[in-house]
Amino acid sequence: MTQISFTELEQLIQKSLICQGMSEENARIMSDIYISTTKRGVGHHDIHNLPQRLEKLKNGTLNPNPKFRLLSSFGCMERYDGDNGPGELINHFSMGRAMALASVHGMGMCAMNNSNHYLCSAPYIEQAARDGYIGLIIAKAMPTMGMPGHQGNLIGQSPMGFAFPTGGLDPVMLDICLAYVSYEKLKMMADHGESVPAHWGVDAAGIPTTDAKALLEGTKYPIGEHKGFGLALLCELLTGVLSGGCILDEPEEPDGIREMSHTAFAIKADALMPMEEFNTRSSELIARLKARDANVRIPGERTYEITRRYEETGIIELEETLLSVLCGYAEKA
Amino acid sequence: MTQISFTELEQLIQKSLICQGMSEENARIMSDIYISTTKRGVGHHDIHNLPQRLEKLKNGTLNPNPKFRLLSSFGCMERYDGDNGPGELINHFSMGRAMALASVHGMGMCAMNNSNHYLCSAPYIEQAARDGYIGLIIAKAMPTMGMPGHQGNLIGQSPMGFAFPTGGLDPVMLDICLAYVSYEKLKMMADHGESVPAHWGVDAAGIPTTDAKALLEGTKYPIGEHKGFGLALLCELLTGVLSGGCILDEPEEPDGIREMSHTAFAIKADALMPMEEFNTRSSELIARLKARDANVRIPGERTYEITRRYEETGIIELEETLLSVLCGYAEKA
Repeated sequence: MTQISFTELEQLIQKSLICQGMSEENARIMSDIYISTTKRGVGHHDIHNLPQRLEKLKNGTLNPNPKFRLLSSFGCMERYDGDNGPGELINHFSMGRAMALASVHGMGMCAMNNSNHYLCSAPYIEQAARDGYIGLIIAKAMPTMGMPGHQGNLIGQSPMGFAFPTGGLDPVMLDICLAYVSYEKLKMMADHGESVPAHWGVDAAGIPTTDAKALLEGTKYPIGEHKGFGLALLCELLTGVLSGGCILDEPEEPDGIREMSHTAFAIKADALMPMEEFNTRSSELIARLKARDANVRIPGERTYEITRRYEETGIIELEETLLSVLCGYAEKA
Repeated sequence: MTQISFTELEQLIQKSLICQGMSEENARIMSDIYISTTKRGVGHHDIHNLPQRLEKLKNGTLNPNPKFRLLSSFGCMERYDGDNGPGELINHFSMGRAMALASVHGMGMCAMNNSNHYLCSAPYIEQAARDGYIGLIIAKAMPTMGMPGHQGNLIGQSPMGFAFPTGGLDPVMLDICLAYVSYEKLKMMADHGESVPAHWGVDAAGIPTTDAKALLEGTKYPIGEHKGFGLALLCELLTGVLSGGCILDEPEEPDGIREMSHTAFAIKADALMPMEEFNTRSSELIARLKARDANVRIPGERTYEITRRYEETGIIELEETLLSVLCGYAEKA
């Protein structure tokens, strides 16, 4: 492991992206997202995903400077072609549009087709909450989740998240998917030889398993079985169907729109009451929860603690191999 | 059990409500809701709940003819005092407002405080879907759901539901709560001596149980543990906090606003594409799911089959005791 300051890491990220043809402005947006997610300390859905993006930018399968094209709009809703850009740029733009629409209408929605991996929900919904909105984002990819009583994968696991302000330092923020466990977390558990609850899914033979490695090769189940399945169906509708993107398992065509879609929602927190009153009420919600059990963990709480520790030192330890890969991309061809 | 035609049942419902001082128009709205939910054949959250409402109307704790008072509005969002009316009338009105706002803005939201039990989500979201909207409704009551690692109930189980049109006969419709199991379903399972999965919750001593009766006396867990818990927190925000109602476990005051709140959302299905295209795309979502597994059950499918059978015969069998209770309320004092 090598220590690196976040200032240096930021420069390295930006340079690696600019060397793949990305504009300075886009590289700045990307590095903000990668720095903030890396400071969450989760160990996945962060800087570790950047090499994949850089490779795709290098080999021309990802557009470094997408031009978002408005496909249709009505009132507080808009729909864009994401021009095969990085999911990070697409969702940064999309949540910005949802907030702009909500500032006028109270609520706003922006659906984007032709998108790519967005890393995770946190950076976009967190920005919305910091700007005074209730932010909600949903991602659509290929089916990677099954259902008890059925074989194989049926539906996407709907990565999603929401955040809202409470007037305090940090928003409440939940960044999840609708499977019991995400691929990355399961992979980490499998690597550590950990066991999983039997209701999380089945192995490749369709038998319930408590072995993380066996589940990784099998089929994950939705939270609450038919409940999570139904919620995932709503997410498929709000992303792939509404955006005009690929539907469920519809394959992307060469040079056609990409399989991923994303939809961002924003609700103006002070639409129905002054911001001060909203903050008083949303913080009372948290206070009442803590009063019922002081040890209850509020969504986002733990990651903000980790972020704060990183910001105090300004330094992170990362794998040498990761840093040398990034350095490789940061050199002009 | 006694056979009764739905026509007679409708008249009985209306008469029992009118005899408690409800207007003819309100009684008609109520009977539509009770007839449609009873035709779902679930055996709870239907006509069996009507005697409780009638008793509350009779003893004056429920307002038969509420006047909904607009508290604040902004763009596509409105917030009302539900005037301690039946949850059925409140949510019928609320989804109507959400749809009216969505017809102008694309999306609409209506939050109601000072509400009461709404029976279930189905009738309101179903109406939205039949009128060309994606409907979503959320209910807030007192904490009835815990979390692994914590004792007792922490948060509401957030009854909720959504529906959307597909151009076919019936909308897709999911009517759930965020606990693994609702109180009524668990009660039925306990009455039948059925067992439950161990991850659904714990008994009164905090020990995981597979006995439905023991779980009924213990604490139910949210779907996907911290995931369902986080989603329930968002639901608490969108109902109690945003409506200006009671927050989490805030007790209602005598003659003050009631503990329940409800929030309805509507999205105009043809806001971003013509209705025909929306229907083609949403029905393709279902077709693609069925193509992956022909036996997969689409949310709502089973209850619509039951409804259809009831509508063919026009007759239902109900407990004599229930009917005689209803007849009792249908006589002028």
